Amino acid sequence: MNNKNIANIYKKFMDEILVVQDFSSAIALMNWDQEVLMPEDGFPARSRTYATIADFAHKLTNSKSQIGRTLKLLEHKNNLSELQNRCLDKYHEEAKRSWKLSSKLVKDLAETTLNAQSVWSEAKEKNRFDLFAPYLQRIIDLKREEANQIGYSKNPYDALLDEYEPGLCCDTLDNLFDALLPSLKRIREEVLQKEPSQIEKHPRITKEKQFTFIKDLISKIGFDFNKGRVDLGKHPATEFIHENDVRIIAVAKDNNISTGIFLTLHECGHALYYQNTDMKYIGTNLYCGSSTVLHEALARLLENNIGKSRSFWEGCYSNLIKHSGIKGSEYSIEDFVWSINKISSSPIRFEADEISYVFHIYIRYLIEKRLIEGSLTVEEVPGLWRTLFQEYLDVPIANDSTGCLQDVHWACGLIGYFPTYFVGSIYAAQIYSVIKNQYNSFDDDLENSKYSGIINWLKVNIYAHGAYYTPKELLFKLTGNESLSYHDFENYLTNKYKSLNN
Amino acid sequence: MNNKNIANIYKKFMDEILVVQDFSSAIALMNWDQEVLMPEDGFPARSRTYATIADFAHKLTNSKSQIGRTLKLLEHKNNLSELQNRCLDKYHEEAKRSWKLSSKLVKDLAETTLNAQSVWSEAKEKNRFDLFAPYLQRIIDLKREEANQIGYSKNPYDALLDEYEPGLCCDTLDNLFDALLPSLKRIREEVLQKEPSQIEKHPRITKEKQFTFIKDLISKIGFDFNKGRVDLGKHPATEFIHENDVRIIAVAKDNNISTGIFLTLHECGHALYYQNTDMKYIGTNLYCGSSTVLHEALARLLENNIGKSRSFWEGCYSNLIKHSGIKGSEYSIEDFVWSINKISSSPIRFEADEISYVFHIYIRYLIEKRLIEGSLTVEEVPGLWRTLFQEYLDVPIANDSTGCLQDVHWACGLIGYFPTYFVGSIYAAQIYSVIKNQYNSFDDDLENSKYSGIINWLKVNIYAHGAYYTPKELLFKLTGNESLSYHDFENYLTNKYKSLNN
Repeated sequence: MNNKNIANIYKKFMDEILVVQDFSSAIALMNWDQEVLMPEDGFPARSRTYATIADFAHKLTNSKSQIGRTLKLLEHKNNLSELQNRCLDKYHEEAKRSWKLSSKLVKDLAETTLNAQSVWSEAKEKNRFDLFAPYLQRIIDLKREEANQIGYSKNPYDALLDEYEPGLCCDTLDNLFDALLPSLKRIREEVLQKEPSQIEKHPRITKEKQFTFIKDLISKIGFDFNKGRVDLGKHPATEFIHENDVRIIAVAKDNNISTGIFLTLHECGHALYYQNTDMKYIGTNLYCGSSTVLHEALARLLENNIGKSRSFWEGCYSNLIKHSGIKGSEYSIEDFVWSINKISSSPIRFEADEISYVFHIYIRYLIEKRLIEGSLTVEEVPGLWRTLFQEYLDVPIANDSTGCLQDVHWACGLIGYFPTYFVGSIYAAQIYSVIKNQYNSFDDDLENSKYSGIINWLKVNIYAHGAYYTPKELLFKLTGNESLSYHDFENYLTNKYKSLNN
Repeated sequence: MNNKNIANIYKKFMDEILVVQDFSSAIALMNWDQEVLMPEDGFPARSRTYATIADFAHKLTNSKSQIGRTLKLLEHKNNLSELQNRCLDKYHEEAKRSWKLSSKLVKDLAETTLNAQSVWSEAKEKNRFDLFAPYLQRIIDLKREEANQIGYSKNPYDALLDEYEPGLCCDTLDNLFDALLPSLKRIREEVLQKEPSQIEKHPRITKEKQFTFIKDLISKIGFDFNKGRVDLGKHPATEFIHENDVRIIAVAKDNNISTGIFLTLHECGHALYYQNTDMKYIGTNLYCGSSTVLHEALARLLENNIGKSRSFWEGCYSNLIKHSGIKGSEYSIEDFVWSINKISSSPIRFEADEISYVFHIYIRYLIEKRLIEGSLTVEEVPGLWRTLFQEYLDVPIANDSTGCLQDVHWACGLIGYFPTYFVGSIYAAQIYSVIKNQYNSFDDDLENSKYSGIINWLKVNIYAHGAYYTPKELLFKLTGNESLSYHDFENYLTNKYKSLNN
């Protein structure tokens, strides 16, 4: 086969990918609309439109002709440029999962999870795990079948983890948790003894004032409002509609800044990754994050490592005071930074401090893994949830609504997703450590609310590359080591609470 | 071929139609988004997504298999139910146009009109017809080619009119205009002599106050906010996303209620048609208006016949005063109703009163028809526009921006569309005449701001039927006559100005 033929095949291969991207863009817009402003009765017909377009996208990816082109190109990698090979590998990495799944399984999962989400919503509202249990059972069965169809060498749960971070497996997670949990438990207990008891969890700020403040703040940090929007919606999220249209959905609640401010910073971290990828990747499948986990890492870097630091608030606390109506004289910056890092005894994941958060994830990981392995029944979940929260965090679970029913993930079929939050924090701490070493005025910049230098460092070193490099390659470029390491995360938390106590 | 085979073919035929409807739903959402809140830089990538999805929809409609199914079903109409036959006929009516067009022409038109719209925008802003002229020339050439591919017996322009109202042709329009224009000219001149000179064109109301008032008003009239939205956007429009999601885009300008109030009432007329079609037509291609012209008629009925009547404002003027800040003592209801019906000497179509409006359309019709026939060159358009406005309305055209460049229609390839506005007014007057005869408390209801009875009459007699009946069938059911008649329109205008003068 000559070069011209290969070039033709490559062109058709990429054209097909771009069509699927356009379908995904329409779906992202529908998602955004549904979360932010769709009329109340619009849901059923919207689901119909969504299903039709998703089905077309799925069929294109799994068409015999596109599979044939992909396999043919894999045979002729030598005839492709470096960029073309990167596109091919990235596509193949994702598509081969899709090729392995039977269309019956895909259809069953789509239908089951659609129904499960509304049942979950009712079950959570009524505190009735028994309503949700049969759906969870069905989802576990289907996800176990998915693991079997994908294949795995050791644990079926590995096949599910792999979707969000290529190569991530239970062994890696177990090693990280084993190494970290004892020291995190120790730090947590020390902090609980030392933290000032008079600190309120959060200053009391209305949701409107939080929203005004955070829009102003993320604009200063670098979110480009000509290429995106920020709106209030039902759940925090970032919708990537296309390279010039990235939309943050914020959620704000009166007197609780963990959602209004910190989850919006989190979403801004996702959005900056999308908005700062190099334009040369438009027209390829590399204009996206390197992996789900790396996206999560960059979101957590802004939310936690940067957003909950003293330096950061030195730079913008006066602005919060101006916008919020709280009195600086009554709520000092020391009190404020303590309040946003206070060890939480909430049973709710997204209200947890960074240390407790790891335990929230660990407990979910244990339960999911056992469900998929078959060593735990669905009926045993609420009981085990309570036991583990008591054991690891000394947190009582008053009811399942604030316990094992709190998150929508399982109803969406997202089994194996929670660990991405934890691994994201590990990556984030590694990136944080590198940037603080390499970018000398890091803390100075934050204290003076100067963000462009830091964002530019992230752009040059991470954002701009899109999915050209794998997460491991990026990690190697940054740290000289391609393995995940928990040391930076442990040091980061140790230092944070040490300096808070001083 | 047995009944079971036909049933199978029919099922596949309808499934394919529903897929195209889902694509159209996604496109409608994209249109709405672009008009209301899309980020500034989003346009190019959005056009790409739009083109991909529109292309898929077009290919499905024109696939050999769908054409084959349609032709096969047309051969076996006896095996289909009445409803199935209606669906088949409606589909065939529209699809056969599409089948006749070469894919090259469709592609050329899409590309040319996309570029033409941005050039038109610049040309209008800079008052430079010469910039737009080559694009208009190309569009006229392509539309003439379209007429040739569609076919026609007498005038190529007939083939273009037919898209918006099956069977509408130049002969019908010429007869209507010939019969109406002399008497409209006479009424117009009489009114100009008699109308009170002190009436301002419009009361001075800020756009925010107009928007608050009109949202409240259309909610009272019957627009269902659980199945739709009203937002401010760039151009007035109604986007039908699906049966439970109908979105009005309103435009409001300070101190000019013709857009903020009356064009929003117009859009509400479209929206009520969509929102009140019988749910039994969901899952078919009949959940839509009977024709473009009938949709326009129902919009104009609410905007003009109802919305500019004394009875209507008897019912809601006090509310306008409450919302607007104008003083009832300074601006009586008599003054107000005069002001909204005042004969306009504006060169702008959507600022025209109902009489002058007919001339605005007639002039466009003459120019379009001659362009398509080839008896007028593009370069002659601005001159002829000025001459005709002087001749028919005694209105001088200061520049092309407020003359032949004022409307986007030509840049969109909408040649033959303007007459739908005129024919819509004719239909509207016929419907208005019937409802006033059949619904005894019509004016009483309006005076007491009771709308549900009138809307219900429209629902039972028109809205609910969707596209089950053709416009002619509906007209026959309403009036006992299936021909368009200008008498009701003439009487309506004569009576309106007679009563205003008393």
